[in-house]
Amino acid sequence: MPPLLDELKRGLRALFGTRAGEIVLAPGSGAGAMESSLVNTVGPGERLACFTNGYFGQLYGELGRRLGADVEEVAAPWGEVVDGETVYRRLVADRAHAIRAVAVVHNETSTGVTSDLAAVRAAMDAAGHPALLVVDTISGLASTDFRFDEWDVDVAVCGSQKGLMLPPGLAIACVNERAIAACQRVTTPRSFFDWRPVLEMAEVGFLPTTPPTSLLFGLRESLRLLAEEGLAEVYARHARLAGAVREAVAAWDLATVCADPARASASVTAVRLPDDVDGEEVARLAKRHLELELAAGIGPLQGRAVRIGHLGWLNDLEVLATVGGTELALAMAGHDVSLGAGLAACQRSLAARWIRPA
Amino acid sequence: MPPLLDELKRGLRALFGTRAGEIVLAPGSGAGAMESSLVNTVGPGERLACFTNGYFGQLYGELGRRLGADVEEVAAPWGEVVDGETVYRRLVADRAHAIRAVAVVHNETSTGVTSDLAAVRAAMDAAGHPALLVVDTISGLASTDFRFDEWDVDVAVCGSQKGLMLPPGLAIACVNERAIAACQRVTTPRSFFDWRPVLEMAEVGFLPTTPPTSLLFGLRESLRLLAEEGLAEVYARHARLAGAVREAVAAWDLATVCADPARASASVTAVRLPDDVDGEEVARLAKRHLELELAAGIGPLQGRAVRIGHLGWLNDLEVLATVGGTELALAMAGHDVSLGAGLAACQRSLAARWIRPA
Amino acid sequence: MPPLLDELKRGLRALFGTRAGEIVLAPGSGAGAMESSLVNTVGPGERLACFTNGYFGQLYGELGRRLGADVEEVAAPWGEVVDGETVYRRLVADRAHAIRAVAVVHNETSTGVTSDLAAVRAAMDAAGHPALLVVDTISGLASTDFRFDEWDVDVAVCGSQKGLMLPPGLAIACVNERAIAACQRVTTPRSFFDWRPVLEMAEVGFLPTTPPTSLLFGLRESLRLLAEEGLAEVYARHARLAGAVREAVAAWDLATVCADPARASASVTAVRLPDDVDGEEVARLAKRHLELELAAGIGPLQGRAVRIGHLGWLNDLEVLATVGGTELALAMAGHDVSLGAGLAACQRSLAARWIRPA
Amino acid sequence: MPPLLDELKRGLRALFGTRAGEIVLAPGSGAGAMESSLVNTVGPGERLACFTNGYFGQLYGELGRRLGADVEEVAAPWGEVVDGETVYRRLVADRAHAIRAVAVVHNETSTGVTSDLAAVRAAMDAAGHPALLVVDTISGLASTDFRFDEWDVDVAVCGSQKGLMLPPGLAIACVNERAIAACQRVTTPRSFFDWRPVLEMAEVGFLPTTPPTSLLFGLRESLRLLAEEGLAEVYARHARLAGAVREAVAAWDLATVCADPARASASVTAVRLPDDVDGEEVARLAKRHLELELAAGIGPLQGRAVRIGHLGWLNDLEVLATVGGTELALAMAGHDVSLGAGLAACQRSLAARWIRPA
Repeated sequence: MPPLLDELKRGLRALFGTRAGEIVLAPGSGAGAMESSLVNTVGPGERLACFTNGYFGQLYGELGRRLGADVEEVAAPWGEVVDGETVYRRLVADRAHAIRAVAVVHNETSTGVTSDLAAVRAAMDAAGHPALLVVDTISGLASTDFRFDEWDVDVAVCGSQKGLMLPPGLAIACVNERAIAACQRVTTPRSFFDWRPVLEMAEVGFLPTTPPTSLLFGLRESLRLLAEEGLAEVYARHARLAGAVREAVAAWDLATVCADPARASASVTAVRLPDDVDGEEVARLAKRHLELELAAGIGPLQGRAVRIGHLGWLNDLEVLATVGGTELALAMAGHDVSLGAGLAACQRSLAARWIRPA
Repeated sequence: MPPLLDELKRGLRALFGTRAGEIVLAPGSGAGAMESSLVNTVGPGERLACFTNGYFGQLYGELGRRLGADVEEVAAPWGEVVDGETVYRRLVADRAHAIRAVAVVHNETSTGVTSDLAAVRAAMDAAGHPALLVVDTISGLASTDFRFDEWDVDVAVCGSQKGLMLPPGLAIACVNERAIAACQRVTTPRSFFDWRPVLEMAEVGFLPTTPPTSLLFGLRESLRLLAEEGLAEVYARHARLAGAVREAVAAWDLATVCADPARASASVTAVRLPDDVDGEEVARLAKRHLELELAAGIGPLQGRAVRIGHLGWLNDLEVLATVGGTELALAMAGHDVSLGAGLAACQRSLAARWIRPA
Repeated sequence: MPPLLDELKRGLRALFGTRAGEIVLAPGSGAGAMESSLVNTVGPGERLACFTNGYFGQLYGELGRRLGADVEEVAAPWGEVVDGETVYRRLVADRAHAIRAVAVVHNETSTGVTSDLAAVRAAMDAAGHPALLVVDTISGLASTDFRFDEWDVDVAVCGSQKGLMLPPGLAIACVNERAIAACQRVTTPRSFFDWRPVLEMAEVGFLPTTPPTSLLFGLRESLRLLAEEGLAEVYARHARLAGAVREAVAAWDLATVCADPARASASVTAVRLPDDVDGEEVARLAKRHLELELAAGIGPLQGRAVRIGHLGWLNDLEVLATVGGTELALAMAGHDVSLGAGLAACQRSLAARWIRPA
Repeated sequence: MPPLLDELKRGLRALFGTRAGEIVLAPGSGAGAMESSLVNTVGPGERLACFTNGYFGQLYGELGRRLGADVEEVAAPWGEVVDGETVYRRLVADRAHAIRAVAVVHNETSTGVTSDLAAVRAAMDAAGHPALLVVDTISGLASTDFRFDEWDVDVAVCGSQKGLMLPPGLAIACVNERAIAACQRVTTPRSFFDWRPVLEMAEVGFLPTTPPTSLLFGLRESLRLLAEEGLAEVYARHARLAGAVREAVAAWDLATVCADPARASASVTAVRLPDDVDGEEVARLAKRHLELELAAGIGPLQGRAVRIGHLGWLNDLEVLATVGGTELALAMAGHDVSLGAGLAACQRSLAARWIRPA
């Protein structure tokens, strides 16, 4: 176990972009990882500021409330980023420094928007606010560059089932010294997600609770695959494939939910649908007829969007197939799409690496 | 997902011995399952009575304290059962019915003792006490008969990695109507282990949090294997194999930690060692030289006992090999064992099914 | 073993389309299966008539020569079928009935042409010739309807690695009573591929030589998958996907090697390339840049064609990806293809099932 | 494929004990490998001398006859070795050097006897006879030291399913320059098992026939496991485990079929049974009641012996279980065995590595 955990920690540190961040592993889903980030940093009745721009940001707030925090939710419109300006204004106003932690979703899966964590941290610093920066990068890590140290993130959480290409069941957190100090301080009743026994046992190379061993071995393999490809190339590949998907969306005369193309997610694209096309019907048709898993919109986007995942072990032709299938499903659902338009746009975008346009 | 969950629930109900008990599944270890049983039944500051007879009973108390309960621990000596008489006396004394739940470990892995839950329930009833009966059967379920309905257990918890023959990572609970009422009542801050969303989603056949899918598929297979063998035969096989192990222990002139042979565990046998033999050394030698995993004693039995697991997918010859290996490790560790004595006793015990002694 | 072999035989009989044909299984590749069909039907120095229309037909002749037969090769141009007329003329001329067996490749992998075995059999009957009809359906079986009984085929051979969706390593033959009589008669020295011990052992449900057990278990699974989908739907799906590939080829302004669209293969399409495009370069580029395995042309088609496989466990979107990748590789290799044209044609063809053109 | 084949060849050369021997791989069983060794070295009607001491030696002769050789069988009693003296006498008598090849089974699976190939080679040299030495080491390789170069073996054949710990389906041959010259010379009709295309293709790193790829990948893993343990330790382990089995046989008051303990096989022990105990019944009972696979005697040993395999991925405790199970099955079958006697003898033998007897 000790050499296995040691290899996993080294690989995860490389992904998180940290030299000294401590890695905390436990059985759990993404929601478990999020819970772990809250119960160790925000005590009962203490203030948690959730800056939200979609479903998972709101979920962070909801979890905080269930776990006894005094949650303040600052909502940006779905499709926009959590921007530094908003964070700055809210924190500056908190003169008493009542806010213990700022929770942000790095890559908002419900909208396909990646927020700029460097800007969030800069805003916190500009406000001179000591709150911890707590980040959900469940659908971002291993698809998009993450810089735990450079962005001075205090807690970042992830799961096994997205960019790490594994079955679900492993909750992962990366925590820094300030976060560890917080976990010693807060009085939240907790046991399973308590970091303290994990950090103690880490010194002898074990975990305090029986770990999901099959996922640990799988994680070792995933980390090796990522290292073999090279993280820079992994991120470049995701960006390239995401760009090709967006070219198709444009060719369909549709818009992405993400307002600013510069902040479009590398791992998921949410497509806003015309009023007469139902996202759930699109997803249902894609699955039934094409064995293609699309995700319907959720929350205010229910029925109004369809989401295309493009992360993990994925190559150009698989993206082409996904786009072709989405196009077919849109057509089946009654969208007046010129069959082949999105497909050709996607293919042209992918081709640019090898073929110079005439 | 709905048909999968439906099959899993039917299979687990058969194992727990219940018709109407609700099944709650979540990513987690055994400790997660135990936490789930406490946060949903005992509110902050409410009284939890832990009747302990070993390490895992004590752990129940420790978890209760961490999670904010007012824990009262009633300890039986390690090696004895949690007996009805003790439970009766304590509950009768609680005239105010302050105790909200009674926690008991069904099969105490640290000592190899299986407590009589029917007697515990009878004691509770005799005392006319309304506390919930909360049971850890992590190392008991699927190896030993469990009668959730007949014993009127309110909550029983299990993990995937023992009698269910899977990798760790799945926390399983079976809960009855009284327990569900409790989970609606208590105010413990909780989210990940909260039963309420699980029970709500169960009606449409899903889980509220991303489930560890590979373990769900594995569980389906395990349940099919158990059903194919027949539960009665599964339990009889475990009892037979455990009996053969105890014959070997007797032939080594050693005693089991379990005081009453009638309550000896079907899944694990803890062997008390002479003063000059170190249990950790025995386990270390078995692993290094024989690729055999034994468990050393823990708590007051540290160094003083070695534990032999015999559960799950296991047959006569594997038990014979395990006993032979334990015997060799005992000899290597300096115990004055007559090589072959335990092995022959074990073999004779196993043989009784087929060969009539002369 | 007996129930496993029994299930395999029943499933294979359904695929071959026979009630009474005997199934012969042995470790081997497709070439081994072909060898088995020759050494048991054509004795040393006896006449074998190979009607060829591509590489694998020629290989049949080559194997016959190596194994001591007096081989007469009647070659159709690559891209055409083995037609009944040719067979009729040759057999009628063989007044002495010197020809012991007629060898034909059902689905010629080198050209993507499926010959009409009913017509071949009709020609043999019209000629009143008693030669055995020996068929290689290695790349045809389980992708295309096969009617062993109706077409009165005497020997049909297959491997595990094409339509049966398994790793290579299993040689499969289906043989009728006339073929069995021949194997008793011929004096070819043989042992490993001798049917006689296989047929003898079949009566007790075993194989005479150690079988490749992992492939037998895999074959059971493949046969179950095929039966679950339904053979008619399996063949329809292959035909549909092959048709969509050919639409793409037409959109590229290229021709298939197969001259008659009505005889185009359901499992592989060979595309004739313009003079300035090298098929091996196309395959090399597809593999290096797109992780797509195409096959280059062989024999007279070396460099002049590229072959697209579309058989086995394959759906619409995978075919779309394959066509998109082939198109990209053609463009990379310098073919003046309008990117997206083939892709759109393929997609339109696939869409016809669900979307009525305006 | 080329780097894979290269690694396999290097690993197999180490196992065979050769620097320059060529490795020939093909789909096939052990019988296929044996056929390959004959059709490439002995032409039609040419003389093959089979020195037999059991079933598989006789099979070599039988295969030779079926394949058209003029087979001369020189039989030693079952249980004895193929000894040098016999070989010398036969070869000296063959003044015309009509014998083209001498076939010997290295490790006779039917009797558990390993012949001394150095002595066989010495006899051939002493006789000044140019025949090729052709060896079946199907159940010997990877369990017992093999010295292709030192013993000057010309052809040695093996399969995947014994010491190489894989499913069956791969036929392996190691051939030297004299054998290659023979395969160029002989006129046996052959194709599938012809070494010539294999040797030609080897130069570019491919195989002429579709290989059983899953077994090639498995073989790579097996060779790595063997190299990691170290071949010397692999052979020592097999010898040690085999010795422990023979101690049990002696404790049962039974004899091994192998007459000379110094030539007892490291991979299988055949036990001669008393007249009133039926070997097939012993094997049947072991399988039904104990899930233990024993092999019954074959040929003249049918019913009169039971064979215990002990090769491959096997450790001390598995051998102990096997011996304990055999003992139980012997008792069930009515043999008057003192239960535990063989088990204790086996355990004592295994213990000698770690525990000095008092």
